[in-house]
Amino acid sequence: MQIAVLGTGTVGRTIAGKLSELGHDVAVGTRDPQATLARSEPDARGTAPYSVWQADHPGVRLESFAEAAGSAELVVNATGGEGSMDALTQAGEANLAGKVLLDVSNPLDFSQGFPPSLLVKDTDSLAEQIQRAFPAVRVVKSLNTMTAALMVDPGGVGGGDHSVFVSGDDPEAKRTVTSLLEQLGHRDVIDLGDLSTARGAEMYVPLWLRMMGALGTPMFNIKVVR
Amino acid sequence: MQIAVLGTGTVGRTIAGKLSELGHDVAVGTRDPQATLARSEPDARGTAPYSVWQADHPGVRLESFAEAAGSAELVVNATGGEGSMDALTQAGEANLAGKVLLDVSNPLDFSQGFPPSLLVKDTDSLAEQIQRAFPAVRVVKSLNTMTAALMVDPGGVGGGDHSVFVSGDDPEAKRTVTSLLEQLGHRDVIDLGDLSTARGAEMYVPLWLRMMGALGTPMFNIKVVR
Repeated sequence: MQIAVLGTGTVGRTIAGKLSELGHDVAVGTRDPQATLARSEPDARGTAPYSVWQADHPGVRLESFAEAAGSAELVVNATGGEGSMDALTQAGEANLAGKVLLDVSNPLDFSQGFPPSLLVKDTDSLAEQIQRAFPAVRVVKSLNTMTAALMVDPGGVGGGDHSVFVSGDDPEAKRTVTSLLEQLGHRDVIDLGDLSTARGAEMYVPLWLRMMGALGTPMFNIKVVR
Repeated sequence: MQIAVLGTGTVGRTIAGKLSELGHDVAVGTRDPQATLARSEPDARGTAPYSVWQADHPGVRLESFAEAAGSAELVVNATGGEGSMDALTQAGEANLAGKVLLDVSNPLDFSQGFPPSLLVKDTDSLAEQIQRAFPAVRVVKSLNTMTAALMVDPGGVGGGDHSVFVSGDDPEAKRTVTSLLEQLGHRDVIDLGDLSTARGAEMYVPLWLRMMGALGTPMFNIKVVR
């Protein structure tokens, strides 16, 4: 499948690298590919420059948000939540129309330090905001409840015996995403229901952040025991 | 141990009944014991009148909030979140001072229908509101992340192989609660940290509500796989 992954951070790179490894035709989308490639220093979090990652992943193209989305059948929103709307606006409504948008982002507000609070919550969600802004896109929320390494390698903890959620208004789009999740190794995909259920998946993140603090690692996920 | 369970609903009854069965000296606290006992019809949710439950649990006393709290070593807040502050005010600061308060409530707002939203969230929590209002109480948030039946019988799903959280500012109070959780059969008690981490445990509830909708049952809990 032709897949665009919007976002050049750790989440975007991790998803793009794995989908490419699985045989998909992957383009990473960024605001300004020249500027992204020109950076030669690690960022504030110590993440290596994109060019270093790209050298290890020659099969993954780097394109503008609009180019990447335009040629894709499925688009992954792996931008930071506060920048998602802007990135999708740059990708362009026409380039997104009719496509499945797998939204893995979280609307985190780091302006008051750590742990971040949520920019939107409870009576709305980032996934629904995206859906309202781009009504022709078929938004599916998923994977936002775990660290990037486990998104693409659930076997990294507990032999992969844990759960992932999907929320969305389009049943076919949820089936497409579920199939992709299964390709990544997820065995317990729980369909929470329509896109408003993404409020639950996004509001779980404050608990996730406290668990990371208590456990001292992001390498964990929840299994829904029933 | 002498334990007061504030609240006569399903959560209060379930906890009180089990703690009594375990050999604790349990009093249930209510606003007006006479009025509670006088009810003869099921409530709006179909819960049987308290008098029916009491007939099956003769060892559990029914007292006013103040009487129950006054004679207790440990107090469980099992009232509905919107009524918790009022119930604790009736219990009385002097009756609560120095005691461990196990807060299992959730600040749910059902005024807009189902699923409820949260009355407090993200930058505050009901547990912290209680702690601020009653600074001499040693508040520990726990058990609010699962249905009442599993609070007292974790073996009800998955052989009890799932997790429960504690949050609180007083290490000794958390040890007391952890010991009580272990008596109830909980084997994976995760200490999230200080009481502000209760924000995470309370904000998980919107996801829990959507999972209940998707799974069609409240009989599930999460295991933190790491």
